[in-house]
Amino acid sequence: MYQIGIDIGGTNIKLGLLDEALELVAHSSVPFPHTTAEDMAGTVGAGVRALLQAHGAALEAVESVGAVVPGSIDASGETVIDAHNLDFHDVPLRRLLAAQFPGIPVRIANDANGAALAELYRGAFVGCRTAVLLTLGTGLGGGIILGGRMFNGGMNHGVELGHAYLVDGGEPCTCGNRGCMESYCSATALAREGRAAMRRAPESLLWQKAGGSEAHVDARLVTDCAKAGDPAARAAFNVYVEHLSSACASVFNILDPEVLAIGGGLCGAGEFLFEPLRALVSRKCFYDTHGKIVPALLGNDAGMIGAALLGRDAEG
Amino acid sequence: MYQIGIDIGGTNIKLGLLDEALELVAHSSVPFPHTTAEDMAGTVGAGVRALLQAHGAALEAVESVGAVVPGSIDASGETVIDAHNLDFHDVPLRRLLAAQFPGIPVRIANDANGAALAELYRGAFVGCRTAVLLTLGTGLGGGIILGGRMFNGGMNHGVELGHAYLVDGGEPCTCGNRGCMESYCSATALAREGRAAMRRAPESLLWQKAGGSEAHVDARLVTDCAKAGDPAARAAFNVYVEHLSSACASVFNILDPEVLAIGGGLCGAGEFLFEPLRALVSRKCFYDTHGKIVPALLGNDAGMIGAALLGRDAEG
Repeated sequence: MYQIGIDIGGTNIKLGLLDEALELVAHSSVPFPHTTAEDMAGTVGAGVRALLQAHGAALEAVESVGAVVPGSIDASGETVIDAHNLDFHDVPLRRLLAAQFPGIPVRIANDANGAALAELYRGAFVGCRTAVLLTLGTGLGGGIILGGRMFNGGMNHGVELGHAYLVDGGEPCTCGNRGCMESYCSATALAREGRAAMRRAPESLLWQKAGGSEAHVDARLVTDCAKAGDPAARAAFNVYVEHLSSACASVFNILDPEVLAIGGGLCGAGEFLFEPLRALVSRKCFYDTHGKIVPALLGNDAGMIGAALLGRDAEG
Repeated sequence: MYQIGIDIGGTNIKLGLLDEALELVAHSSVPFPHTTAEDMAGTVGAGVRALLQAHGAALEAVESVGAVVPGSIDASGETVIDAHNLDFHDVPLRRLLAAQFPGIPVRIANDANGAALAELYRGAFVGCRTAVLLTLGTGLGGGIILGGRMFNGGMNHGVELGHAYLVDGGEPCTCGNRGCMESYCSATALAREGRAAMRRAPESLLWQKAGGSEAHVDARLVTDCAKAGDPAARAAFNVYVEHLSSACASVFNILDPEVLAIGGGLCGAGEFLFEPLRALVSRKCFYDTHGKIVPALLGNDAGMIGAALLGRDAEG
């Protein structure tokens, strides 16, 4: 029997097939059709049937289907309330996908929740009862494992860790509030700090590499220039790590997880990020013996693998 | 059979007897001896034996003993790491109490955790699977119910909700960090805002009532003057409620509890506090359909009742 995982992104939709050992035995990718949600469901159905056929498997051998989206799901698990990158608003996604896979249970979830689930079965959280994933990207995604299962909020509203306050009244956030974790800890926030640092230091390496153009400053460039020893980029990076460490300390003080994993492109900075981060968190956290801080292991496949595991988690 | 609950405070130790229906059938109070922890345990043992005798019950009829302290407990549940008001540091409290009650299981916990447990069995959280208690006092205590049981942190380090960040880098906190929820949402924080408001408005009602003395400004006076319409006190109260609403919104965005209960003396302000609080939280929270915000129900007995329930919760 197989589990199908679908990671619906604004550019591509990733499709994956997990076998009973939870190994990813086949996967493919189809472009996201920017037409209607019905078209999207049809594209997914055709893509999955093609993937099964190429693998020599029948639809009858599929035990469950899971899909994740970068957005919020309603408490009944039926509808995508908002997924801005997909332009999905109040889309009955579970029903649309279920129509493509008659007789097979279909579940949907937020992609960061799915990624945390993937880390639980196959990555940084294996063996954990309590664990937290923070994904540092355009936004700040968060997934929580409690009691060895995906935590979808006490009322099933999902988890919006990125929109817990970090600096109440501070930088504006995409959600409309000011000072969310997301507005200080996302890759976007590091780029913002980098732009501010560049304005203050027009002769810096950061300025040179960006050709003096703020549009060329992203989290990667700030990190690279900081690694190269540029004082302006270093200052921006330090401000960022200071705030990220506060967010991590808050997570430990509230949930006391065995493992806190950091995902997203910024993890590529490796120990240049993790070493100062761990030192600051240990200084700020209430307990010296808090859990580990590690890079997430599954990278870009995490959402797809987690989607395939939604059925397994629901039974567990 | 009876459950014994012990709430150890820096002034008094409260002792309570719960019957099988979880009714508080007898209780007493003894002064906290500021000598040694051994003396304290002896005082508790004698107090409990007297309470049982007065109720016509034998020690053999006691099923379990629980004690709560205003401080942090080690992960093994044996030792009070720090309880500043008791001057307890690395005190093996569980063992000291167990020596007073041979053959009876003894458990210890943080008092805010205990209070949350009491609300679960007898108060604002009855029937809840997920709930959060914030106690607004000198500090900010927090207790979390998950899966219908007391959550003591993923690694059993306890929950330090009051030391999640709210304004990273802001007001100094007793824990050594800057900007914890406690430093903006405790009753102490409201008094601080009130003093600042008084300095800015020397002709205010707040100034008159306090006789111009900052030492006379406490959370109660600020609240009373705000209720009376004093603009200076009103401004201080509004700043406080703004921050408290951000803390509550963070709790909803992270844990999505069915009920968030607010305890502590400030609850006496009633709807004057709760009405603007609910309005601000609804504006800030990611979901319109978030859980209820209510006053805690058990008041000063919550810690003692929760202590008595530690055994029941551990079995549950």
